Amino acid sequence: MPVGTAGSVKAVPQDMLESLGAQIILGNTYHLYLRPGHEAVRRMGGLHRFMSWRRALLTDSGGFQVFSLNELRKVSEEGVRFRSHLDGSSHFFSPEHSIEVQIALGADIIMAFDECTEYPADRNRAEESLRFTMAWARRSLDHFRAHKHEVPWHQSEAGVGSDEPRTQSLFGIVQGGMYRDLRRQCAEQLVAMDFDGYAIGGLSVGEPRELTLQMISEVLPLLPANKPRYVMGVGYPDEIEMYARLGVDMMDCVLPTRAARHALLFTSEGRLNIKNKQFAEDQSPPDPACDCPVCRRYTRAYLRHLVQAGEPLAATLNSIHNLAFYLGIMQRVRASLQAEC
Amino acid sequence: MPVGTAGSVKAVPQDMLESLGAQIILGNTYHLYLRPGHEAVRRMGGLHRFMSWRRALLTDSGGFQVFSLNELRKVSEEGVRFRSHLDGSSHFFSPEHSIEVQIALGADIIMAFDECTEYPADRNRAEESLRFTMAWARRSLDHFRAHKHEVPWHQSEAGVGSDEPRTQSLFGIVQGGMYRDLRRQCAEQLVAMDFDGYAIGGLSVGEPRELTLQMISEVLPLLPANKPRYVMGVGYPDEIEMYARLGVDMMDCVLPTRAARHALLFTSEGRLNIKNKQFAEDQSPPDPACDCPVCRRYTRAYLRHLVQAGEPLAATLNSIHNLAFYLGIMQRVRASLQAEC
Repeated sequence: MPVGTAGSVKAVPQDMLESLGAQIILGNTYHLYLRPGHEAVRRMGGLHRFMSWRRALLTDSGGFQVFSLNELRKVSEEGVRFRSHLDGSSHFFSPEHSIEVQIALGADIIMAFDECTEYPADRNRAEESLRFTMAWARRSLDHFRAHKHEVPWHQSEAGVGSDEPRTQSLFGIVQGGMYRDLRRQCAEQLVAMDFDGYAIGGLSVGEPRELTLQMISEVLPLLPANKPRYVMGVGYPDEIEMYARLGVDMMDCVLPTRAARHALLFTSEGRLNIKNKQFAEDQSPPDPACDCPVCRRYTRAYLRHLVQAGEPLAATLNSIHNLAFYLGIMQRVRASLQAEC
Repeated sequence: MPVGTAGSVKAVPQDMLESLGAQIILGNTYHLYLRPGHEAVRRMGGLHRFMSWRRALLTDSGGFQVFSLNELRKVSEEGVRFRSHLDGSSHFFSPEHSIEVQIALGADIIMAFDECTEYPADRNRAEESLRFTMAWARRSLDHFRAHKHEVPWHQSEAGVGSDEPRTQSLFGIVQGGMYRDLRRQCAEQLVAMDFDGYAIGGLSVGEPRELTLQMISEVLPLLPANKPRYVMGVGYPDEIEMYARLGVDMMDCVLPTRAARHALLFTSEGRLNIKNKQFAEDQSPPDPACDCPVCRRYTRAYLRHLVQAGEPLAATLNSIHNLAFYLGIMQRVRASLQAEC
């Protein structure tokens, strides 16, 4: 899933995302809550309509940003008090509030409010953090079940050809730090609560990749295979391919777009820092094996020039290629898994 | 003509320019000479190929930027010594060098090297400046005639179905400050030299709009109607419509794209500062009378949000709309002039 933090996958127009084959993109609850505000988005009919995105949308719970962007946050059983990174104003997120905000935003998939355990965390800290996550998962689910019909598109789009009004799906998030037994315990309890899908969070937070893989391998078999299984915040191209082959259905990562804005291209020949002088007159496409709109039309020399000249088109073209590269990996994995069936 | 200073119309991909109907775009010789360098562009087959632009291209002479971006320039009969705004390095542009650079860049239309007389300029200063411009026009033309077959696409694309190898077109530039007789004198002498087209330069440099119009009205009848007549560096939407109706065939201006990057939209309802709070929940399209890809898909509220959030997509979408608005004016003027014939 390309990441569209503030209602836009940075530098890439929506029609381009469609033509690249993006089926779902992610919005960040924390950012959209602060600006333009979830009530404004609700009044405008939800995030789909606001940003003109007709395909699927997922919002995170806001938890990750509250923890990563706020050094002065205060966590209690009740929830988290934090300061806006925009203007320093004080805000409070509880599980109920996170779900309320996410219902207002109206994404197709929303996430339980969790605490993303930092790395490294000792056993006591990981256990304490997990207690919050588990209590909050329960409260997220209860609040969601009581209020899910408040989704802004419920009135207008629900029930066409169906007896059941269409609502959002709520996913639970497995935490537990880097402790296998805590992870297992969390997964089993969440599955017992019967979420619509399950995510594995708290990974790609600085731990070695072996540990990431270990945690995923531990948890994945415990999650029902007939529901979506989502690993949050990963990863490099080889990682997403490996995890997909292990049975992970969904992943999100800012890497393809963020790296693009820093002139880093992912290609079939490895990573290119397109800013390097060696590309100054390189008239080959960014990735000779890629047939994205950028590789079909532009040269490495031109992309390098755009970066050097500080042209805004650099971010757009580099992001389009990197997203095409990531989406291409997933398309190939899907095809290969289907062939095995 | 949308302006693509450094080989990119800022924030707008080439395929979008094509679908907006842009028939020709402008590149700045000064910028491209400094980065990536005209010899590099020549080695890569010219600017068309370098930036993947298959339609017409025009480069200016570099004179305007040398004068506007360099406070420490030294002008002599021979040419202009100036410092790069990028790294302070010292460079020299003569008419011959400007033409040499423009031949290397390989635009379809190139411009004689001129001195853009500042405003205000007293009579003595305007006369002196015009003497440079006239001498440099002659030298530009002579150098062009001797070297025009060095254009990088001459070998590869010339002569297909034609006896005459295809080369560039060179336009002369009418200067003369705000003095009607100097303008007339300049126009008559340039026409006698027989350029492929004629531009009126040194306007939109801070003078009142009445004066701009006066100069255009004075000069236009002296320029051959069967050759392109180009007013450089204008203007607001009502200006370009007025000048086109007077008989001006070509104009360029950074205004639609620069204003877009500052959140200013040109619409059939006038100018909108899309950053204004009044648009926070305005779900109408930027311009209800416009059918550009932005107005068909996005709301004022969304564009306002993108600007507020500092999203790079703001510059792209705002620029697309403003260019569509400008190109739409010219399409309507063309249709109305054709209907009158």
